[in-house]
Amino acid sequence: MQTVFQKILNGDIPCHKVYENKHVFAFLDIAPLSEGHTLVIPKEPVAFIHELSKESGAALGEALVIVANAIVKATGVQEYNLLQNNGIKAHQAVFHVHFHIIPKPSEPAGLQFDWKPAELPGGELLAQKIRTAIA
Amino acid sequence: MQTVFQKILNGDIPCHKVYENKHVFAFLDIAPLSEGHTLVIPKEPVAFIHELSKESGAALGEALVIVANAIVKATGVQEYNLLQNNGIKAHQAVFHVHFHIIPKPSEPAGLQFDWKPAELPGGELLAQKIRTAIA
Repeated sequence: MQTVFQKILNGDIPCHKVYENKHVFAFLDIAPLSEGHTLVIPKEPVAFIHELSKESGAALGEALVIVANAIVKATGVQEYNLLQNNGIKAHQAVFHVHFHIIPKPSEPAGLQFDWKPAELPGGELLAQKIRTAIA
Repeated sequence: MQTVFQKILNGDIPCHKVYENKHVFAFLDIAPLSEGHTLVIPKEPVAFIHELSKESGAALGEALVIVANAIVKATGVQEYNLLQNNGIKAHQAVFHVHFHIIPKPSEPAGLQFDWKPAELPGGELLAQKIRTAIA
C-alpha cells in the first residue's frame, strides 16, 4: 500500500510544496507544531533512514540546509528543531523517511521534549562495535 | 571561544569515535539517552544547520545513513530518532551543528517528546514565502 507521502510525490494528493529537486521533495506539514513546520523527504521510497542510498542521504542533507535557510528567512524565526523518527516506538507515523523542520518561536509552540541522560559505562567497547559495523 | 566539539575535533578532548571522513566526525554522546546515542557533526565550525555549506550538508546527510545503519547493527535496536537543535529556545547546548542519533529500545529510554499539532490556515501563502526565499 502506498504511503500518503508517496501519494503526494505522485501528485495524487495536494500539498503546499516548498522545494523539489531530482532526489528530494519538501512541503508544509498539514498539522504543524509551529508556523513554517515543513517536511523534507527523499523521493526514494524507504521507511527508515538507515535504508536510504548514500546518494539520497547526501541529497537530503543538502536540502535540509537549503530549506532550513529559507524557513528562517520566510518566518523570521532563527531557532528550530530537526526531527526524524524511525519506527513506531520512535513515533513514526508515515513509513516513508521524512525530516521535520520545526521553527521554535516561543513556548508552547514548536517541539517539546524531555531529556533524561544516563551515564556512559563501557563506551569504548560500544564505539568499537559501531566502528566494526561500519567497516 | 572554542566549543567542546571543536576541542574534540582538534583532539584536545578525548571521545569514543565511531566514524570520520573528510567532512564529518561521529562519536558517542557522553550523557546518552539510550545505549548507542551518537552525535554526528560536520567539521565545518558553524552553530546552525542553515549556516552550513551545501557540501557539508551533503556529507552530513550521507554520514547519517552510514552511522544509523551501523548503530542498528551494533545495538540490535531497529527504532531510533534523529534530532538536531538550533538555538537556545530549541534546546541547543553546544553551538556547533550536531545530529543526535538516539536508539529507542523501550520506554523510558530514548527521546521523549510531546506532539501538539495545530491547523494550517493560509498554507499556500506561507509556502510561497518559503519558495521565494529559496529562489
